[in-house]
Amino acid sequence: MSGRLYALSTGPGAADLITVRAARVLGALDILYAPAGRKGGDSLALSIVRDYLGERTEVRCRHFPMSADGAEKEAVWNAVADELAAEVASGKQVGFITLGDAMLFSTWVFLLQRIGRQEWLEIVPGVTSFAAIAARSQTPLAMEQQSLAVVSCTAPEADIARALAQHDSLVLMKVYGRFPRIKALLREAGLLDRALMMSEATLPGEQCWRNLDEVSDERPLPYFSTILVNKRLESEQ
Amino acid sequence: MSGRLYALSTGPGAADLITVRAARVLGALDILYAPAGRKGGDSLALSIVRDYLGERTEVRCRHFPMSADGAEKEAVWNAVADELAAEVASGKQVGFITLGDAMLFSTWVFLLQRIGRQEWLEIVPGVTSFAAIAARSQTPLAMEQQSLAVVSCTAPEADIARALAQHDSLVLMKVYGRFPRIKALLREAGLLDRALMMSEATLPGEQCWRNLDEVSDERPLPYFSTILVNKRLESEQ
Repeated sequence: MSGRLYALSTGPGAADLITVRAARVLGALDILYAPAGRKGGDSLALSIVRDYLGERTEVRCRHFPMSADGAEKEAVWNAVADELAAEVASGKQVGFITLGDAMLFSTWVFLLQRIGRQEWLEIVPGVTSFAAIAARSQTPLAMEQQSLAVVSCTAPEADIARALAQHDSLVLMKVYGRFPRIKALLREAGLLDRALMMSEATLPGEQCWRNLDEVSDERPLPYFSTILVNKRLESEQ
Repeated sequence: MSGRLYALSTGPGAADLITVRAARVLGALDILYAPAGRKGGDSLALSIVRDYLGERTEVRCRHFPMSADGAEKEAVWNAVADELAAEVASGKQVGFITLGDAMLFSTWVFLLQRIGRQEWLEIVPGVTSFAAIAARSQTPLAMEQQSLAVVSCTAPEADIARALAQHDSLVLMKVYGRFPRIKALLREAGLLDRALMMSEATLPGEQCWRNLDEVSDERPLPYFSTILVNKRLESEQ
């Protein structure tokens, strides 16, 4: 059997929100690479897939630094990309797991940029965190002619404000550490009562706030917190 | 056992891109409702789930008209929503399937608006078509501070053009019947070489065009055709 690399999306958190395909692939891997060390999020990815792994699958954790040092990150991405390609070349079935969907705000994209499009690569898509939040909160994302913007709260505030003005529905990712400013932007846009926030969707610690005005700016939020804005939300929620 | 309603996302097309949870729920349903009659798309949803259904699951297809007659659509949505609620009230385990993710451009959202948030309702999220297209084409959606806009090609052209100007990455849904105008908008925005189109992603008839300039305006496209724009795409692709 020739070597293959699978980029496997684990979905938002609950183990049974992984796809049937990802579950099957996990059971046949020689080696599973798991990112590690980002405030507990990546050990989460590993915990999601653990029950699906084959008995002979070797798990290798790789640390991706969060530092602002571009050269340090580049070196790690290069090294891991080389390692994945080398294992495939030696005939192994290799997996790399990533929370949510592999192609959206994921470490995997940096590896893909180095590995390039390859015949021996299969990317298995997954359920995004925002689809899970919409489902759990029973709040639609978009319909008919509406548009949805998925924005990182690390983006410039002017860009976030513009997106809030222009789209019917928005997902604000990476709220952690930025809640007070995002809440102020929502208030300025008149959208505070059209927003909800969810943390750790589909996990045992899931929390949902339907009134962001009542969430203290001082309160430390869980790392996986996302805001959903839908301008058609009923204001009483 | 008390009655429950499950809105089940089937994912983009391949049967094994359904979630493990949806597969399990399907096996335990008393009744599965399937939308029918929209240019073959909904029989697709049913074909995705058929192998997961329990032996005693009764399948009921319901036709949702595509007509512009608002009153006709309203009447159907009201009737199906009432029917679902009535079966739950009688203690049944009821499912309603929807392609892609249930909360994004789906008939289910119209039913949810009528049913309301309920304790007896569980929405199972799924893989969106655009996550599948990104995975199959090995093209990232967004990373770091980038933003992603998901836009329907039925939206006003000025809105589509604005989104093309402002976001790093875009998904243009519902291209069918609108390709010549969308191609012109992409050309005007200087993004024709940053776009790809995929039809029937993850299905046997999957097609990918990486050079939209070569796609004739006269060519009839498959109904499930979506354009992905990523401004960081290499121009040679």
